[in-house]
Amino acid sequence: MALARIARNGFRRSGGAVGTTYASEKDALCEGAYAPHKCQSLIGDVGTPSGGLSYLSSIKTPPFSSYGTRGMKTTPQYQFGHAQRVIEESDSEHESAKYPTLEATKPGEKPRVVVLGSGWAACRFLKGLDTKLYDVVCISPRNHMVFTPLLASTCVGTLEFRSVAEPVSQIQTALAKDPNSYFFLASCTDVDTDKHEVYCETVDDGGLSSEPYHFKVAYDKLVIASGSEPLTFGIKGVKEHAFFLREVTHAQEIRKRLLLNLMLSENPGMSEEEKERLLHCVVIGGGPTGVEFSGELSDFIMRDVRQRYAHVKNYIRVTLIEANEILSSFDVGLREYATKHLTKCGVRLVRGIVKEVHPNKIVLSDGSDVPYGLLVWSTGVGPSEFVKSLNLPKSLGGRIGVNEWLQAPSVEDVFALGDCAGFLEQTGRPVLPALAQVAEREGKYLVELFNRIGKQNRGKAFAAKDVPLGDPFVYKHLGSMASVGRYKALVDLRQSKDGKGLSMAGFVSWFIWRSAYLTRVISWRNRVYVAVNWATTLVFGRDNSRI
Amino acid sequence: MALARIARNGFRRSGGAVGTTYASEKDALCEGAYAPHKCQSLIGDVGTPSGGLSYLSSIKTPPFSSYGTRGMKTTPQYQFGHAQRVIEESDSEHESAKYPTLEATKPGEKPRVVVLGSGWAACRFLKGLDTKLYDVVCISPRNHMVFTPLLASTCVGTLEFRSVAEPVSQIQTALAKDPNSYFFLASCTDVDTDKHEVYCETVDDGGLSSEPYHFKVAYDKLVIASGSEPLTFGIKGVKEHAFFLREVTHAQEIRKRLLLNLMLSENPGMSEEEKERLLHCVVIGGGPTGVEFSGELSDFIMRDVRQRYAHVKNYIRVTLIEANEILSSFDVGLREYATKHLTKCGVRLVRGIVKEVHPNKIVLSDGSDVPYGLLVWSTGVGPSEFVKSLNLPKSLGGRIGVNEWLQAPSVEDVFALGDCAGFLEQTGRPVLPALAQVAEREGKYLVELFNRIGKQNRGKAFAAKDVPLGDPFVYKHLGSMASVGRYKALVDLRQSKDGKGLSMAGFVSWFIWRSAYLTRVISWRNRVYVAVNWATTLVFGRDNSRI
Repeated sequence: MALARIARNGFRRSGGAVGTTYASEKDALCEGAYAPHKCQSLIGDVGTPSGGLSYLSSIKTPPFSSYGTRGMKTTPQYQFGHAQRVIEESDSEHESAKYPTLEATKPGEKPRVVVLGSGWAACRFLKGLDTKLYDVVCISPRNHMVFTPLLASTCVGTLEFRSVAEPVSQIQTALAKDPNSYFFLASCTDVDTDKHEVYCETVDDGGLSSEPYHFKVAYDKLVIASGSEPLTFGIKGVKEHAFFLREVTHAQEIRKRLLLNLMLSENPGMSEEEKERLLHCVVIGGGPTGVEFSGELSDFIMRDVRQRYAHVKNYIRVTLIEANEILSSFDVGLREYATKHLTKCGVRLVRGIVKEVHPNKIVLSDGSDVPYGLLVWSTGVGPSEFVKSLNLPKSLGGRIGVNEWLQAPSVEDVFALGDCAGFLEQTGRPVLPALAQVAEREGKYLVELFNRIGKQNRGKAFAAKDVPLGDPFVYKHLGSMASVGRYKALVDLRQSKDGKGLSMAGFVSWFIWRSAYLTRVISWRNRVYVAVNWATTLVFGRDNSRI
Repeated sequence: MALARIARNGFRRSGGAVGTTYASEKDALCEGAYAPHKCQSLIGDVGTPSGGLSYLSSIKTPPFSSYGTRGMKTTPQYQFGHAQRVIEESDSEHESAKYPTLEATKPGEKPRVVVLGSGWAACRFLKGLDTKLYDVVCISPRNHMVFTPLLASTCVGTLEFRSVAEPVSQIQTALAKDPNSYFFLASCTDVDTDKHEVYCETVDDGGLSSEPYHFKVAYDKLVIASGSEPLTFGIKGVKEHAFFLREVTHAQEIRKRLLLNLMLSENPGMSEEEKERLLHCVVIGGGPTGVEFSGELSDFIMRDVRQRYAHVKNYIRVTLIEANEILSSFDVGLREYATKHLTKCGVRLVRGIVKEVHPNKIVLSDGSDVPYGLLVWSTGVGPSEFVKSLNLPKSLGGRIGVNEWLQAPSVEDVFALGDCAGFLEQTGRPVLPALAQVAEREGKYLVELFNRIGKQNRGKAFAAKDVPLGDPFVYKHLGSMASVGRYKALVDLRQSKDGKGLSMAGFVSWFIWRSAYLTRVISWRNRVYVAVNWATTLVFGRDNSRI
């Protein structure tokens, strides 16, 4: 899910900027993270000086008057933290105290699970939650889940935007129907783990004339699945000029720009140079998203541009720039296949590192200029501003640190999963890659855990402290798939980067790729649409209305 | 088609403001226009003092040096007009002389038809044009035709946006393929009927960082089908706060606002009053568009809102405000049926005149306030700024005046059709209503005329002066249809407002309405999509992803 701040800062002005180089999508979080780290303390030790103090000194805490409202006992460290902060925060505390509130559940009422986010992890969790046991509130700046693996196909019109989006209230109908379950279209701005409250503000995407509306929601259990943000590594101009490819709105903008450039380049008097620039599509980052987008683009060029933009068909080119190797997490044979296939389809693969991005050109670290008309940035993801702002212990890579049960162990009743969560160092486990597959599996695991403790009547706030949570989460990688355009895909069924197993490439892989996605698109409605989209694209070609 | 200026001023900031009251959509252009007017001179007389002088005094003319470039002989009036203007316009003339140009066709080359617009009239013309005889250039700020009668259905998700849009280059494939035919995504800003040139600037819809690009295109024949603009009657706040419903982008914005308001109204702490305001959908204008939109909304409320927005379902209301009677061009029995049916579906019909529009409320002329969350404005259309700026004789209602052959008779090689054209008073014919049906029939007529004179080698500039143009255009009204929501529609097969003939309402009409549109949606691709949309809406309900 694109986080909170994405929506608030205008759709593609998001992303945290850390570091000065970049790796491919998958590597960004795997490389350092997969390295084994010895840990001194196991869960249960969190909150002791070894790991607990650093974040307590600035954690957001309530004023004295609210102590014990939930009957919570505070630790000495916590009080210390509080004492330091009570003065400077009194103003904002006063402000937020007045916010309209969805009050804490009363004894006898169902416990309330608050889910932040509407991505793979959040939606898998929402889908499985037993709403006889829980009321559920989902808070997200978008009201739908995006079927991200097919997003690249929507940019060129192979699939329609709506076919890859699924309303959250269809995934969990209780959100729409149950009297005490809600979906709020809002960004979460802060969490008060002590009071068990989240602070929210409504999304302003330009259509609203009024100020954002603030409110707070009390939770019994909190599930943070607010996702990550694209990494820009602090490179100048990326946020201003590049498109990301994580939301339906991003795909819509890319499509509009692509069609605009195709049409502009036909205008009378356009110089050869300007035509070449306008129709130069540059993709930064050779992870699955970058490769799939390049593949779709080259397919679009071969099948549609040649027929429908005959005047400028010889000017359009696709360049994929990657600092290391493309698809570095895939089997070496597949990488070679992908390289060969993309090159054959006219995608130029360039090894390079981006230094600066200007409105019409990129400057690489070797000093060379790359003029572009469309720039798509997919160099992996990192922690969002919201996650960074949370004063919870972090995993390697700056995600919310969780234990084997996906629980933030320093506080009660807070769980995190998906791209925004990573195992704490002391668990001795690697931080898992930012993949839909991981998020989905974590959602499935956590909802089973929730339904189990719910049945034991431990769903309420502070009620699950000493309850055994069952088996810890174990991630088993089922393999990776990536399409490389026109009837070709890669399927890598190895369980890890250095493992052994089946890997295949070509038409059969492509068929498996399509079938797998068709069966996984969440609703029957969208399955019908994806199938119809694919069929009509095959028969009639892609639609190129610029709407 | 929404004109030139719409796109340039931001999508819904368009519209001319004339007068202080309003009539329903259909009436706006019919009432005064249909009244018979005696005329003194017939065509051929145009250019004489009776009708010709008034516009000549300010017509845009070329500098002396360009005289005769086309071998044109100027009339004394023309020279007089020119003498008056040459000094004040020398600067802009100088500017535009430098514009990149699609030069005039040379002897031996095919004549070039330039079509302004991509609406019903333009697209019907483009579709039929014999591209063995002509090269064709289409200039429009949008690259697709909108199937306007189904646009209201897209606002609530019954149909997808893409199902009602058809790329112009699919309608006339020569635009994409022929070496000398082009589609330019641009607004026409001026026409030099003397030089046979149109001036254009590229569309800036916010996605472009650079300045608009200016260019000019020489024509042998010019077809102006640039459409009309919504009438706002100078009422304060309409352009700022109301949505029009003429483009796919309008429908997209209405849909986003509707879903946003539904979600915002669920937020904690919303007062009853605020919920009622947010969910009050107000439609101004009881023409077919206003009625169809109200019907679709009420259907959406009954079928989808009740299930998917259970928390706020009792707050949503639809009010249709009309100064006179709804559907005033329809048979009285049908009007009564529509009134009864809409009322039954929960649409509140209010007789009233809007005085002012504020961000959250409308003030009516009786002083009462109407708070709203969504305001849709469909009170008919009037001449666009572009049409107003053209110094050609005008018809009643300010459209480009044409003779029986849809020709602007004061100049050579200029034709106008659709909403932007009206019969000159001296033809003794009424200005036809601004209907898709009229535009489509005019396009069909004109393209036959063009193909005929093309075969006689009279397609070049100044080559058709004394050629007989064949039978004049005769409009025969085939009847009107309007859906009023949930399986009900009106079909009025009378040939005129006061004529006799079949009129029917109900389920069978609705079935005819659907079938008629399904067969008329231009491409097979869109027929498939419309059918699939209708089927999936029936089976799965409407999609409510806010994308």
